[in-house]
Amino acid sequence: MSSNFQPKPEHKFTFGLWTVGNRGRDPFGEAVRETLTPVNAVKLLAEVGAYGVNFHDNDLVPIDASASERDGIVNEFRKTCDDNNIKVPMATVNLFYDAVFRDGAFTANDSKVRSYAVQKTMRAMDLGAEFGAETFVLWGGREGVETDACRRVDDAIKRFREALNYLCEYNISQGHGYKFALEAKPNEPRADIYFATTAAYLAFIETLDHKTMVGVNPEVAHETMPGLNMMHAVAQAWEAGKLFHIDLNDQVPGRYDQDLRFGSANPKGAFWLVKFLEDVGYSGSRHFDAHAYRTEDYDGVKDFARGCMRTYLILKDKADRWNNHEEIKDILSEIEATNAKRPFGSFDALLADDFDRAALASKGLKYERLDQLTMDILFGVD
Amino acid sequence: MSSNFQPKPEHKFTFGLWTVGNRGRDPFGEAVRETLTPVNAVKLLAEVGAYGVNFHDNDLVPIDASASERDGIVNEFRKTCDDNNIKVPMATVNLFYDAVFRDGAFTANDSKVRSYAVQKTMRAMDLGAEFGAETFVLWGGREGVETDACRRVDDAIKRFREALNYLCEYNISQGHGYKFALEAKPNEPRADIYFATTAAYLAFIETLDHKTMVGVNPEVAHETMPGLNMMHAVAQAWEAGKLFHIDLNDQVPGRYDQDLRFGSANPKGAFWLVKFLEDVGYSGSRHFDAHAYRTEDYDGVKDFARGCMRTYLILKDKADRWNNHEEIKDILSEIEATNAKRPFGSFDALLADDFDRAALASKGLKYERLDQLTMDILFGVD
Amino acid sequence: MSSNFQPKPEHKFTFGLWTVGNRGRDPFGEAVRETLTPVNAVKLLAEVGAYGVNFHDNDLVPIDASASERDGIVNEFRKTCDDNNIKVPMATVNLFYDAVFRDGAFTANDSKVRSYAVQKTMRAMDLGAEFGAETFVLWGGREGVETDACRRVDDAIKRFREALNYLCEYNISQGHGYKFALEAKPNEPRADIYFATTAAYLAFIETLDHKTMVGVNPEVAHETMPGLNMMHAVAQAWEAGKLFHIDLNDQVPGRYDQDLRFGSANPKGAFWLVKFLEDVGYSGSRHFDAHAYRTEDYDGVKDFARGCMRTYLILKDKADRWNNHEEIKDILSEIEATNAKRPFGSFDALLADDFDRAALASKGLKYERLDQLTMDILFGVD
Amino acid sequence: MSSNFQPKPEHKFTFGLWTVGNRGRDPFGEAVRETLTPVNAVKLLAEVGAYGVNFHDNDLVPIDASASERDGIVNEFRKTCDDNNIKVPMATVNLFYDAVFRDGAFTANDSKVRSYAVQKTMRAMDLGAEFGAETFVLWGGREGVETDACRRVDDAIKRFREALNYLCEYNISQGHGYKFALEAKPNEPRADIYFATTAAYLAFIETLDHKTMVGVNPEVAHETMPGLNMMHAVAQAWEAGKLFHIDLNDQVPGRYDQDLRFGSANPKGAFWLVKFLEDVGYSGSRHFDAHAYRTEDYDGVKDFARGCMRTYLILKDKADRWNNHEEIKDILSEIEATNAKRPFGSFDALLADDFDRAALASKGLKYERLDQLTMDILFGVD
Repeated sequence: MSSNFQPKPEHKFTFGLWTVGNRGRDPFGEAVRETLTPVNAVKLLAEVGAYGVNFHDNDLVPIDASASERDGIVNEFRKTCDDNNIKVPMATVNLFYDAVFRDGAFTANDSKVRSYAVQKTMRAMDLGAEFGAETFVLWGGREGVETDACRRVDDAIKRFREALNYLCEYNISQGHGYKFALEAKPNEPRADIYFATTAAYLAFIETLDHKTMVGVNPEVAHETMPGLNMMHAVAQAWEAGKLFHIDLNDQVPGRYDQDLRFGSANPKGAFWLVKFLEDVGYSGSRHFDAHAYRTEDYDGVKDFARGCMRTYLILKDKADRWNNHEEIKDILSEIEATNAKRPFGSFDALLADDFDRAALASKGLKYERLDQLTMDILFGVD
Repeated sequence: MSSNFQPKPEHKFTFGLWTVGNRGRDPFGEAVRETLTPVNAVKLLAEVGAYGVNFHDNDLVPIDASASERDGIVNEFRKTCDDNNIKVPMATVNLFYDAVFRDGAFTANDSKVRSYAVQKTMRAMDLGAEFGAETFVLWGGREGVETDACRRVDDAIKRFREALNYLCEYNISQGHGYKFALEAKPNEPRADIYFATTAAYLAFIETLDHKTMVGVNPEVAHETMPGLNMMHAVAQAWEAGKLFHIDLNDQVPGRYDQDLRFGSANPKGAFWLVKFLEDVGYSGSRHFDAHAYRTEDYDGVKDFARGCMRTYLILKDKADRWNNHEEIKDILSEIEATNAKRPFGSFDALLADDFDRAALASKGLKYERLDQLTMDILFGVD
Repeated sequence: MSSNFQPKPEHKFTFGLWTVGNRGRDPFGEAVRETLTPVNAVKLLAEVGAYGVNFHDNDLVPIDASASERDGIVNEFRKTCDDNNIKVPMATVNLFYDAVFRDGAFTANDSKVRSYAVQKTMRAMDLGAEFGAETFVLWGGREGVETDACRRVDDAIKRFREALNYLCEYNISQGHGYKFALEAKPNEPRADIYFATTAAYLAFIETLDHKTMVGVNPEVAHETMPGLNMMHAVAQAWEAGKLFHIDLNDQVPGRYDQDLRFGSANPKGAFWLVKFLEDVGYSGSRHFDAHAYRTEDYDGVKDFARGCMRTYLILKDKADRWNNHEEIKDILSEIEATNAKRPFGSFDALLADDFDRAALASKGLKYERLDQLTMDILFGVD
Repeated sequence: MSSNFQPKPEHKFTFGLWTVGNRGRDPFGEAVRETLTPVNAVKLLAEVGAYGVNFHDNDLVPIDASASERDGIVNEFRKTCDDNNIKVPMATVNLFYDAVFRDGAFTANDSKVRSYAVQKTMRAMDLGAEFGAETFVLWGGREGVETDACRRVDDAIKRFREALNYLCEYNISQGHGYKFALEAKPNEPRADIYFATTAAYLAFIETLDHKTMVGVNPEVAHETMPGLNMMHAVAQAWEAGKLFHIDLNDQVPGRYDQDLRFGSANPKGAFWLVKFLEDVGYSGSRHFDAHAYRTEDYDGVKDFARGCMRTYLILKDKADRWNNHEEIKDILSEIEATNAKRPFGSFDALLADDFDRAALASKGLKYERLDQLTMDILFGVD
């Protein structure tokens, strides 16, 4: 049966350079794995069966590289990608690691920092375009505060909008053809990050000059940290035509950003998410933004990467099983039977209507049974 | 000094009938206070100095009241409001208490339940209009799930939109002139409620037929339950022109809905919130959606209500102190000095610009000092 | 395969009267199910295959029942239990529902309330003893505060101890032979409940006069609400010889008390828990302290109850599979090989020892693989 | 008034070398401050008015230092401490930073790692003893798991006990005279850390060979991360005679470990904590285990350190005000009046007692008023 869960290009499984290349450094401990060069990361991804690789500008090109160093790196990396049939569907920019961003990037109080952040993003867009990246993700990891004394939030929003509008113009001017995907997170590394949820970005996008060019990149861990339902966020984005990318990993609510192997903490949530993506026909990358435990060497990193893809495919299989399960279909039919086409009609007609509340509330809805059948499928016993 | 913190009509302090009328029932205990009639609630609010009262339809008129019972109740209530100079700035509808809503109201799977919910809302709008209410709040407390097996989330969103569009038309047709204010909550009483945050509604509103008619009603407790920053949500709503109402109370993150006395759990968060509202000139109601501890009798309920208003006024005073504090102004001036007008300019010019990252990151930003000065003001020692 | 997951008496599956009898009332909604009499609850439990039933005093006997009413109820209930071969392994006392307990029971500031709480507990002990209950659970749902202004916490602890010591003496004097099992919860219905975690009670027990008579009753939902690892709490209790009872249900962290169907929210956590209980040979009741969704009628309540037991048995089966899985056993053997018997020895010898840190940190530990194999077993694909 | 809040030696304010020496590195960003040498850290602490400094072994002596390097460092550091009248009341050991501890220290699966961890601790004890440290803190930051597949929790507990028992013996043998203080944390850097709460250690201590030698070191941030009430944990430890040390900082529930300036996130919680410590006469160090925002230079670090101490002293002052406030004393007297000495008496007498539940529940308890008065004092308006 396991043989069914092998990744193939059509599954569009991608990993960031920073994911398999994560060295296991954390706030209380130093790195445990040697540096994995971008070239070796691509080879590792090819070995485990991934479709593509994504990167921040500085995952590939050091922040202080000269132009010629940059070109050398780019050429070698492109060749490796080509040789290994690894695509680059998405690129992004690191606006959080360097000390210059300690107070934010697009929202920093220092206007020079904001300009530098925009410049750095433009260059990262150019870099990604060289690899044919079609999606450009923006995660504003430092756009936030430890104390709200330092700036007005509405000012920060205006600054963020100004940067985005400018970058959209740059995108047009260069013919890069990017879709921007904004990625939200409520906290960490800052106490409160602006645009704390995917929905906050969905609302913000509507205020941009080029709103069709901008969508969202929901991440399981980031929505789950505050205990929100990831699939609900994804569904709202999808329904609004804004699901431009997705970051898959796992997380327990109310904790530091764990970036666990996909499906390994909350398999039921992962199931609903995979089912939604497959049911609606989401065709973008399935990007795993996660990393291996600190107990692992690079063999363990491969185990981690394989596990992410395998679990996705297992859950995709189960979603299909769910959709074709006889008893589930029967219950859904019963539900649908109460959902008779019934337009609200004229105001007068609706106001005159007579509803029997007790009758409407009398029949059990069989949701416990429906959910237990879901668990049975998840457990593989039905 | 206390004398400075007396509520006056211009402060626009309002309470829901259900707040001072809360009888202290909870999931593990029965009511501890006798029923407070709507008429007596108004008298209590007048006694403590409130400006207005808000209600759900069934706070005032029982769900099974006949037309004549309704009219009698309405007349007596109106007279009491008039006699006590208590306004009704906002009305809302209860779409969560009756068993008929166990699977949702506008998003229920049963189309009859959806129609009934819309009808009930229309009647509640009519009721509020009789009292001159200008804002109509909608909290979809049952619009959610225990298991995502029961319906597709995008279907639920479409149902919610259909209901809202219809209700906007009704609002126009009747000349009610309402602004709708949508109130979000992530969970409780359902495991996951759709539109989990204020931002989710901000995004949703942009998809409505009459989007200018619809805004949000952020609630401190509801944003805080998942650990989000209430003031940030309010600021985004304000910046988008969508802050149509606000629910003030208090809450510790990661818990059941506590609805504590305003400012009593997180005074610093309350300070930033009051400061924002006052700084931007928010002119709507300051509505307290909270209730007294279960240890209290109605004297304690008065203590609770007085405390909500008093704390607001104390914090308003401190916001003024903050804005005029010399050292704070000095630090803000230093911050502003780095924020020199600096348009991004042409793409070529910006790309050619040279930034000294180390220099930009070298100077301390004095945010610890700024925050400690804020604490000093909060503590009343500076 | 489903036929393997049928409950049998040896599984010791029990339910509280208040679980299948839960009427679906919540803070925002009224009851949705008719009252289920204790007698009918027993019949329902027999029908679904449970081993036993547990109760609070007032689940069975109303708080205001006369002596003769009490006796009538007791006799009828005993006969129903006997006729249906339903055992009563545990009894408990309701010290939270009545308004008299709004400020606590054993820790209330009013000494009369404390005396009444102790008296009520003694009578509940007598009642349980009539049914042969061997475990007496104490959940101090109201032992806490909304404001720490009202009492010193160390005073509350002393009051709680005084009550427990007295009740232990009563237990001895009456020859009831109970083991007491203390059940912790961090919040809800009070803002902060004393003894917030199972571990807090484990520590407290060591200060009692009759410490061997008292252990703990960890509950999945209560440990999970603050995001703690339920199995870790259970393991510490077990290791200390204090796991006297257990409450099984499910919960998402950082929320109101959900009391979901066992294993339906966090199946992986449920797996580790079942595996631990089975591996160590826990022989007590598997008590489900949960309730059906509010969308259900009593058929749905049966679905819920059957689902709890079925999931336990599925996970028990998977635990066995895990223990006998070849690759898992191989990895565990590798782990064990590094765990060579190596006493710390003399101080001098240990201080003189030379450790090669780099070597010790060099080998991957295969925990990602181990965890993915666990997921495969959980998903039923291996 | 500010002049009253100057730190003095009798306040016993201490800081870890790692707190003022924190360079602002986080999971998403590099260091923003230059290295502060231990010697300069001591000078900084003297400048801001601290009483003492604490350290992990490797804060002072690099993990790979030779014996002579160690001695040189120790001598210079001692001289600096002496010259600046800075005490070293507490020492601790770093069992989390080096890769060797990726799977734990005392609980690691590799018995060599466990031995090395114990050896390292012995040496750290010797080091601390050279400075007259009286308390030895143990924080088991890596004693936990990402997957419970890797070891049995009860085995981990036994390993931890074996190490502690051995270290207690070492303490005796060397005449170090330490009190051990165990510090709990629920998660981060591991997904689940064993002994997740202070209470878990309180329970564990009772199972040790030398239980009187071991107590706890509760930390505000660590108890608050899962949303527990820090003061309640401290009170239980105090009541059990186990409050051997305390770590003061601040934290918002449900997040990464923030280590914020004391009192800056939850001033009300900080108030209850300070009030408890002062009311019971806690005489140990007030240790600030926090660090400055990443936006700060070393002037900002001084602002941070001064703010921690200042806020403590402000709250101490307010606690005094609270204890002497007339209306508060009146309400507390009313409460005490219901707490008449009322022993439970004989079983028969108590069972025969007649309680009027309605009467006992009828009177309001004035806790809202009590809490608002507390807020008034906190705000400095009463």
